Amino acid sequence: MHNIILDCDPGHDDAVAIILAGQKKYFNVLGITTTSGNQTIEKTSRNALSIVEYLDLDIPVAKGASEPLIREVEVCEAIHGESGLDGFEFKPLKRSFDSRHAINFIIDTLLNSKEKVTLVATGPLTNFALALKLNPSIRNKIDRIILMGGSYQMGNVSPASEFNILCDPEAAFIVVNSKLPIYMITLDVTRKVLCYNSYIEQIAKINNKASHLFVNLMQVFNKNQKEVFGYDGAPLHDPVTIASLIDENLVTFKHVNTEIDLSHGCSYGRTNCDIFDYLKKEKNTYVSIDINVEMFFKIIEEAIKSYK
Amino acid sequence: MHNIILDCDPGHDDAVAIILAGQKKYFNVLGITTTSGNQTIEKTSRNALSIVEYLDLDIPVAKGASEPLIREVEVCEAIHGESGLDGFEFKPLKRSFDSRHAINFIIDTLLNSKEKVTLVATGPLTNFALALKLNPSIRNKIDRIILMGGSYQMGNVSPASEFNILCDPEAAFIVVNSKLPIYMITLDVTRKVLCYNSYIEQIAKINNKASHLFVNLMQVFNKNQKEVFGYDGAPLHDPVTIASLIDENLVTFKHVNTEIDLSHGCSYGRTNCDIFDYLKKEKNTYVSIDINVEMFFKIIEEAIKSYK
Amino acid sequence: MHNIILDCDPGHDDAVAIILAGQKKYFNVLGITTTSGNQTIEKTSRNALSIVEYLDLDIPVAKGASEPLIREVEVCEAIHGESGLDGFEFKPLKRSFDSRHAINFIIDTLLNSKEKVTLVATGPLTNFALALKLNPSIRNKIDRIILMGGSYQMGNVSPASEFNILCDPEAAFIVVNSKLPIYMITLDVTRKVLCYNSYIEQIAKINNKASHLFVNLMQVFNKNQKEVFGYDGAPLHDPVTIASLIDENLVTFKHVNTEIDLSHGCSYGRTNCDIFDYLKKEKNTYVSIDINVEMFFKIIEEAIKSYK
Amino acid sequence: MHNIILDCDPGHDDAVAIILAGQKKYFNVLGITTTSGNQTIEKTSRNALSIVEYLDLDIPVAKGASEPLIREVEVCEAIHGESGLDGFEFKPLKRSFDSRHAINFIIDTLLNSKEKVTLVATGPLTNFALALKLNPSIRNKIDRIILMGGSYQMGNVSPASEFNILCDPEAAFIVVNSKLPIYMITLDVTRKVLCYNSYIEQIAKINNKASHLFVNLMQVFNKNQKEVFGYDGAPLHDPVTIASLIDENLVTFKHVNTEIDLSHGCSYGRTNCDIFDYLKKEKNTYVSIDINVEMFFKIIEEAIKSYK
Repeated sequence: MHNIILDCDPGHDDAVAIILAGQKKYFNVLGITTTSGNQTIEKTSRNALSIVEYLDLDIPVAKGASEPLIREVEVCEAIHGESGLDGFEFKPLKRSFDSRHAINFIIDTLLNSKEKVTLVATGPLTNFALALKLNPSIRNKIDRIILMGGSYQMGNVSPASEFNILCDPEAAFIVVNSKLPIYMITLDVTRKVLCYNSYIEQIAKINNKASHLFVNLMQVFNKNQKEVFGYDGAPLHDPVTIASLIDENLVTFKHVNTEIDLSHGCSYGRTNCDIFDYLKKEKNTYVSIDINVEMFFKIIEEAIKSYK
Repeated sequence: MHNIILDCDPGHDDAVAIILAGQKKYFNVLGITTTSGNQTIEKTSRNALSIVEYLDLDIPVAKGASEPLIREVEVCEAIHGESGLDGFEFKPLKRSFDSRHAINFIIDTLLNSKEKVTLVATGPLTNFALALKLNPSIRNKIDRIILMGGSYQMGNVSPASEFNILCDPEAAFIVVNSKLPIYMITLDVTRKVLCYNSYIEQIAKINNKASHLFVNLMQVFNKNQKEVFGYDGAPLHDPVTIASLIDENLVTFKHVNTEIDLSHGCSYGRTNCDIFDYLKKEKNTYVSIDINVEMFFKIIEEAIKSYK
Repeated sequence: MHNIILDCDPGHDDAVAIILAGQKKYFNVLGITTTSGNQTIEKTSRNALSIVEYLDLDIPVAKGASEPLIREVEVCEAIHGESGLDGFEFKPLKRSFDSRHAINFIIDTLLNSKEKVTLVATGPLTNFALALKLNPSIRNKIDRIILMGGSYQMGNVSPASEFNILCDPEAAFIVVNSKLPIYMITLDVTRKVLCYNSYIEQIAKINNKASHLFVNLMQVFNKNQKEVFGYDGAPLHDPVTIASLIDENLVTFKHVNTEIDLSHGCSYGRTNCDIFDYLKKEKNTYVSIDINVEMFFKIIEEAIKSYK
Repeated sequence: MHNIILDCDPGHDDAVAIILAGQKKYFNVLGITTTSGNQTIEKTSRNALSIVEYLDLDIPVAKGASEPLIREVEVCEAIHGESGLDGFEFKPLKRSFDSRHAINFIIDTLLNSKEKVTLVATGPLTNFALALKLNPSIRNKIDRIILMGGSYQMGNVSPASEFNILCDPEAAFIVVNSKLPIYMITLDVTRKVLCYNSYIEQIAKINNKASHLFVNLMQVFNKNQKEVFGYDGAPLHDPVTIASLIDENLVTFKHVNTEIDLSHGCSYGRTNCDIFDYLKKEKNTYVSIDINVEMFFKIIEEAIKSYK
């Protein structure tokens, strides 16, 4: 059982991460916090609360940072559409947001927790970075930070950089250099978990509210990824974070030094993970090396089936 | 009458800024917030509260950021000594800090204020930057930000950069690019207001609690500046901010574009103020061009005399 | 038949490139020029001339740049040993170097050539960069530049960067932005052509002077690569350049924009090849995408057999 | 008596430097070499040769680099006009250029000189940088390098940087880090030697070919500087180099560390001269601190009078 706070910017693959996190068997979700990223803070926040309401989860949702530390806001409409979650229509919201800003929500929740909490990020790291700066003492309550972000091979928004990190490289720098145990799920493994149409069809047969959500979202996600990158199946980046908590054997990690490029040049936002330890620098991250693809899709299926 | 929040890191010259700000005739001080800079956050906060108690000012003091956004904490012990305010011994504190973090204090105070408030910074800009990121809507309550920082000629900690800005260049970037009216009091003018020993002697004759504080602090400040820079009189950087509010004619400003160097190279933290408008970029700061030195020292004297 | 000038820093894999280039059937080698890189200029130059003499090739050798443009000289002794070509002992040299500096040799040779010439680089790009700067009119005589260098996935000396490019990133910038047709053989394909011991044994059976050279060098190269990177077979980086001229089908190239990172930060020297055309910038390089591994080793074998 | 090579990009103030250097009493000018800068290489070269012919000086002129190392060519037409020397019409050239490229001319001349030679630069440093890279052994024949370039206060083309250095920052880096004695005449002193109209009128009375050249050029130079910068008298940047050799007491230098900003950010090309030795780095330049203005204008006048 993991106590977690999930910081996200739904986003199609974030939605799948929430489906996974909603399993009470595995997780005690203390809260979901939102950030701008795949879409504006207004849209990602509404999407997060809509998913929670739709899945009937008992989890508070708090709105967070509307803009990165240094860079301007940049959203990813080509992949996630105008709503940030194109493909599924939610009913008008009945629930409302937690009254606190995500950053104060994170700080309060951590300080009030008796047990250590795992922070999971599936979007830009602005909220976690600001919380760490606002109250460094929360470090004592953080078990680890698991994030989807970065790439030590090729980026997905620039040749050098991955979307979540490039949205707010300074925030990533703060998190990666926080001296906390950082688990980084990078494109190098998430590009291996491609959600083909055959899998979508298989999930469709489950025929519950979670499968309806998954199927509708994935059909649009697949179409957009195909148009933008030429992929036949869309890489399910974000849920790998939560899935790696469900089964420790899912992702192979290596303890390495990672430097975040803050040069503001053509490699800005690159995560230079020193896999071969060329530079003999202090190890500050556990970076993803490989993933068991079959196990991953079983974990997704099991999660969807767990809903009624 | 100005409503102000003063963010500082006392610091000898910060102390003089507080003496100036304590004049009810000119200022409604909504609060003093502290940051690390001249010394650690623990020391600058204790110093700020001690000054307020010593001068018997009715101003809340809230502790703020203990570290910059990206860089490591770096203090300036060679100038301000081990306590951050070497030269004066305060009695043990009776007052206590506001229970809120400076950043939440700033946000609450601004949101609760009916009138617009002037933010004054005499230290690194971490608190103001984080407050702006945490709640961008506070912009509507900010009249202007006046800060001591930067240099368009020579720096005072590196050839390129001034101490307050170099302590937290990313915070300075956030503030300068906030689209608020930014008034920047740079070394280019503060290096002209040198506090010679003859002036200290003149102030000594006033013989009240403010003059005692001033004289004791300035004697040590002068000695340290002499040792480090070779100056005969110490430049009274920080109080120029508050003094420029007392008399609008004190400092001449020019509306220019300023770029903060975030290169992490040898000019990191430089404030490139485009005085001659070479680059035809959007003007984002009012930068100090000149100062009336005689008027400045009269303003200081008047302030000290206003205490009993 | 290709007119070529080969600029190299032998270096074990450079030696194999020379073996390939020595085939009169395919190449008219106008000269071999040397640069510091795998070892100092004195050592790489002596190695180049020794190989040419040993193989009895009628090719002038001119000594070139002893140091990169901006960075300090850095050699790669862990891989290539103290001599730069550990594993083979040459007899004392009888031949001598061309009297001209490599850069003047390159300029003279190009200006005097009636036909266009292909420039091949298997080391840092200092010589080609300086020749282009010294006499930009040589561009008219250059058919293309084929170089071994760069990586769009992982580097081999830093997480971001490949050895030849990182040795002199500014030179690489000059070459890549020369508006000439640039063919870049990167680690992304050269890491696929691993020279296993079984192949070395197979070549040993040829039993001529070229095979003796190859076998002796590869045994040490393999041992060193195993120690440094853990590879079972050493990647034969440099000869891919020459081999790609022998058979046009060997390497698949893609026309893309490449930016050389000159940030002097943690990604300095990275070659950001925009394989997916994220940035829609002008295409300036043909970058290697794939290689026919079997064909490559046949090309090597054929070359070695061509010697008596 | 100084053996010198003068590398320049005439340019109005370069022309005055040539007038000064033409005095046989003080200088043995081994050659004048040209670079792009104030105008294109074709124009600056023609200007240099025209001045030499007009003044009837027996000095070879060699054409040099047409473009900087990394940056694109950028000329300064607003100040120097379309010809690079607007204000004076030369007769069609009878003399021709030395057949060698400036860089080979510099190398040959230095290697053939029995005595050490002082290199003087009044334009971007491309030629000297490339010569040092092409043949590092010329260092032994260089007495010192005196250059006009840089600023440790404000730049003149960007807030951070001076024109000559910003034209080719990488070349400046090479020269400044050459471990040779570097004398740097910066804007900080050249902005003090303003050529007012009264001085031009005084020189006009000399009424020889040198005064005609000076007067015509300065009238246009003054007009353009007034339009661009608002100066009443134009700063005579370049001749300070040569003048400082004529009288050693003219310029006060300080031995300091200078770092050239190669960040490609907003301070690119800045010369961070550590006047106060904040950083305790190795001293690599003698940087100009002050100048005797009266002496400077006497030196100019004496030079002009020396022509018939």
